[in-house]
Amino acid sequence: MLKVEHIGIAVKDFTVSIPLFEQLLNTNCYKQEQVASEHVNTAFFQKGTTKIELLESTTADGVIAKYIEKKGEGIHHIAFEVEDIEAEMKRLQQAGFILLNEQPKKGADNKLVAFLHPKTTNSVLIEICQEIV
Amino acid sequence: MLKVEHIGIAVKDFTVSIPLFEQLLNTNCYKQEQVASEHVNTAFFQKGTTKIELLESTTADGVIAKYIEKKGEGIHHIAFEVEDIEAEMKRLQQAGFILLNEQPKKGADNKLVAFLHPKTTNSVLIEICQEIV
Repeated sequence: MLKVEHIGIAVKDFTVSIPLFEQLLNTNCYKQEQVASEHVNTAFFQKGTTKIELLESTTADGVIAKYIEKKGEGIHHIAFEVEDIEAEMKRLQQAGFILLNEQPKKGADNKLVAFLHPKTTNSVLIEICQEIV
Repeated sequence: MLKVEHIGIAVKDFTVSIPLFEQLLNTNCYKQEQVASEHVNTAFFQKGTTKIELLESTTADGVIAKYIEKKGEGIHHIAFEVEDIEAEMKRLQQAGFILLNEQPKKGADNKLVAFLHPKTTNSVLIEICQEIV
């Protein structure tokens, strides 16, 4: 794990939250992208070498809508950049962590991603990600 | 706001969570520090330019103990490094954000810190911090 690539934050409504985070972080949202397979819209802000990624559900029963229904808006996950996602998935599995997807999948921002089950990571949803080159 | 200085994670027990995060992040905890005024122990891991800060309550009714009682273990706050904490507090107040402390206070890791009320930040507890020189 090389660095914190981004922090994902679940929000209800981009029309409220994008201006709010622009004011808070004192920087403009530089990209929005829909990830149709995950039923989310994403919006990105850069701070140093880390991104803040807002997540808005595109459907009433999407994973982010369900998360907000259960826990409210707030920090959803931490994503770490890795050099070799398959090697890192193997290392984590061998160390006893449970992967939510057995194979890397295509995420937002041109990345291959995998998630770890929060029950093995102190209730923190951890993503690992690798840039697709 | 210059960068994500650290991500704070509330945990019940360092004897469980420090080895867990050492395995997860594939790096050793490089520092532990008690912040008596806040009734917390802290443990730090470095990843790129960002730290992961584990927070363990030192008292049954401390702020972290209460947080875990209400919400369970998990991500507690995001801290952004700022160049001039007083100027940044002023900017945020003028933009309508509510500060939890009116004056910068001494936090862990040789920092002056201030927190923003989550009700003004999409339910995300935000810390701003400046290194004491």
